[in-house]
Amino acid sequence: MYRTNNNGDNMYQLLKTDGNAKRGQLQTVHGVIQTPVFMNVGTAAAIKGAVSTQDLKEVGCQVELSNTYHLHVRPSDEVIRQLGGLHKFMVWDRPILTDSGGFQVFSLTKLRKIKEEGVYFSSHVDGRKIFMGPEESMQIQSNLGSTIAMAFDECAPYPTDRSYMQNSVDRTTRWLYRCKSELTRLNGLQNTVNPSQMLFGINQGGTYEDIRIEHAKRISELDLDGYAVGGLAVGESHSEMYRILETVVPYLPQNKPTYLMGVGTPENILEAVDRGIDFFDCVYPTRNGRHGHVYTNHGRLNLLNAKHQLDDRPIEEGCNCPVCQNYSRAYIRHLLKAKEMLGMRLCVLHNLYFYNHLMEEIREAIENNTYAEYKKKKLEALKIS
Amino acid sequence: MYRTNNNGDNMYQLLKTDGNAKRGQLQTVHGVIQTPVFMNVGTAAAIKGAVSTQDLKEVGCQVELSNTYHLHVRPSDEVIRQLGGLHKFMVWDRPILTDSGGFQVFSLTKLRKIKEEGVYFSSHVDGRKIFMGPEESMQIQSNLGSTIAMAFDECAPYPTDRSYMQNSVDRTTRWLYRCKSELTRLNGLQNTVNPSQMLFGINQGGTYEDIRIEHAKRISELDLDGYAVGGLAVGESHSEMYRILETVVPYLPQNKPTYLMGVGTPENILEAVDRGIDFFDCVYPTRNGRHGHVYTNHGRLNLLNAKHQLDDRPIEEGCNCPVCQNYSRAYIRHLLKAKEMLGMRLCVLHNLYFYNHLMEEIREAIENNTYAEYKKKKLEALKIS
Repeated sequence: MYRTNNNGDNMYQLLKTDGNAKRGQLQTVHGVIQTPVFMNVGTAAAIKGAVSTQDLKEVGCQVELSNTYHLHVRPSDEVIRQLGGLHKFMVWDRPILTDSGGFQVFSLTKLRKIKEEGVYFSSHVDGRKIFMGPEESMQIQSNLGSTIAMAFDECAPYPTDRSYMQNSVDRTTRWLYRCKSELTRLNGLQNTVNPSQMLFGINQGGTYEDIRIEHAKRISELDLDGYAVGGLAVGESHSEMYRILETVVPYLPQNKPTYLMGVGTPENILEAVDRGIDFFDCVYPTRNGRHGHVYTNHGRLNLLNAKHQLDDRPIEEGCNCPVCQNYSRAYIRHLLKAKEMLGMRLCVLHNLYFYNHLMEEIREAIENNTYAEYKKKKLEALKIS
Repeated sequence: MYRTNNNGDNMYQLLKTDGNAKRGQLQTVHGVIQTPVFMNVGTAAAIKGAVSTQDLKEVGCQVELSNTYHLHVRPSDEVIRQLGGLHKFMVWDRPILTDSGGFQVFSLTKLRKIKEEGVYFSSHVDGRKIFMGPEESMQIQSNLGSTIAMAFDECAPYPTDRSYMQNSVDRTTRWLYRCKSELTRLNGLQNTVNPSQMLFGINQGGTYEDIRIEHAKRISELDLDGYAVGGLAVGESHSEMYRILETVVPYLPQNKPTYLMGVGTPENILEAVDRGIDFFDCVYPTRNGRHGHVYTNHGRLNLLNAKHQLDDRPIEEGCNCPVCQNYSRAYIRHLLKAKEMLGMRLCVLHNLYFYNHLMEEIREAIENNTYAEYKKKKLEALKIS
């Protein structure tokens, strides 16, 4: 079994619904996750922008997300296993979700060959040949010892023709069975880093509603710890993304957490919560922060803009983040212009706080049965409605 | 007057001597500085390695040092003045020392012309023509509102022939008189950022002992708030540097703080304290940290070295810095290899803590009259004796 309590119990508790929005909690061996939740991305076991795991606590992060492919290539999952696993390596005692490596294999690497057994490709770091299939992905994630492992899937590009998509999704289903049995085996081994490692499956099918639904039904039968919707935010329009969520989420188990992978803007998150999503992750807050783009409740600011030169206000008045408590837009703008790393760090810290705080507000609104109203006001405030 | 209390009192108190080592304190409008002290370098109003002023408090920094030339060029001292001065801009309520801009003018810029009135040069950022003389340097530093301003001097390269050096030092003396009267004027103006701004003079003369001594005598007559030894650590050997200190420090007022500019390694600091120096500054801890070189009491480590791959010890066992309290050599090595900014930040934080903590030990040893013994043991431990 791959469950926290090793007896097949469902660790997710649906606390409240408001329309289709879910307010839940997932018990894990590394603590309880309150959902909806935004996972903070630390690709190579570090958050870009010189942000440490100590900082993540200060900005209210519940779950850190690391990338299996990156860690497999460097420093290698074997090294991390020998050092006691990813939690000990990064010094983070809260939950960690690792992706399967699949997305990076399909987006970063060259000379790929996709076969029934898995994918052959070359490392983007040193070009060496690597094979990764469902078993390898589970073995790597087991070495990392993350709280939640993601199933190894194919994330087909957008657009993909229907027959390729159908074949790809069928293979992804077969891979999911192999993931489940391999992780069950690994969790049962002695000296496993985290014998309670959970497994989330991934729904695919692009924008083909019937393929999505059929796949959702098939993976739901496996009674996994959670279900992700993958293959979105890969080029399709926002309205297509929302349509797919409306189509497929009802076919995923209501009593399990749902995860929309790689999404997104505050607007995307507000809309996806309204369509039943529990988990999110996205590089926007870190990537935008490193470019001086910061989030506020009145829209996004570009701190490199000349109008901030003498602006002694914080990024957002009333914000309780460690950056807004101390530093001015004028100072941060200067740092960015002078290419001081501190400028990027301060923007990233604020952005992560903004996202984590947004999720807090979302959870509160669902609890209060005011989600629709909250969403409307928030979208207007963000000037993105 | 440019003194803290505006009545000509000496704000420096010599608390204790041990051999030639001085244990003192300097009262300033931004708090008391305990000496010997190492000033932490934040060139462009930011410490390189994504270290903030909040972090500086955590690593035990007493005095931050910023560079007048850099801030004049970007964002400009006028901008900082409008924002309330450098303390408010950086959010740092402890003392700040600004250099005069002279060193950068002579080391960074091209097409310089040195005249009696000052120096004509081109900005290293955008090439625009700038003039800086004693009055301009004081005006810029007054706009920044630092706690301690440095006199505008010429830092001649090493080696410099005797006749050029003599002329240069004579001009530097004349510039010092102009600095003093200009700062007195500026401190008396309404709306001055820091009307209690102090002035330190700078002794020059290269490795010519007689020029150094003569200059020290002349500048001592001006009864400034402190005296720096400049123009060292510019290429001469360590033994030459120590010889010059032994020669010139006795001619500087014993009842004023002394400052050895731009120095240096822990060994240099231990030796210079033994020759009567109170203040130090150096980019080594930040620059070395950004390259993965970290200081310990058993010598310097290169964390990029392969032997640290599985090394789960902190940089230094028993170190109370925020980095050693949390992260392992293996993790930091991984971050550096993966070019994650966090790796640089952690190394810089540790190094600054190391330097600040070294000064604490030095002060304690002088208080206990055990400086000679402490220095010997420390140099042996550092494996640089």
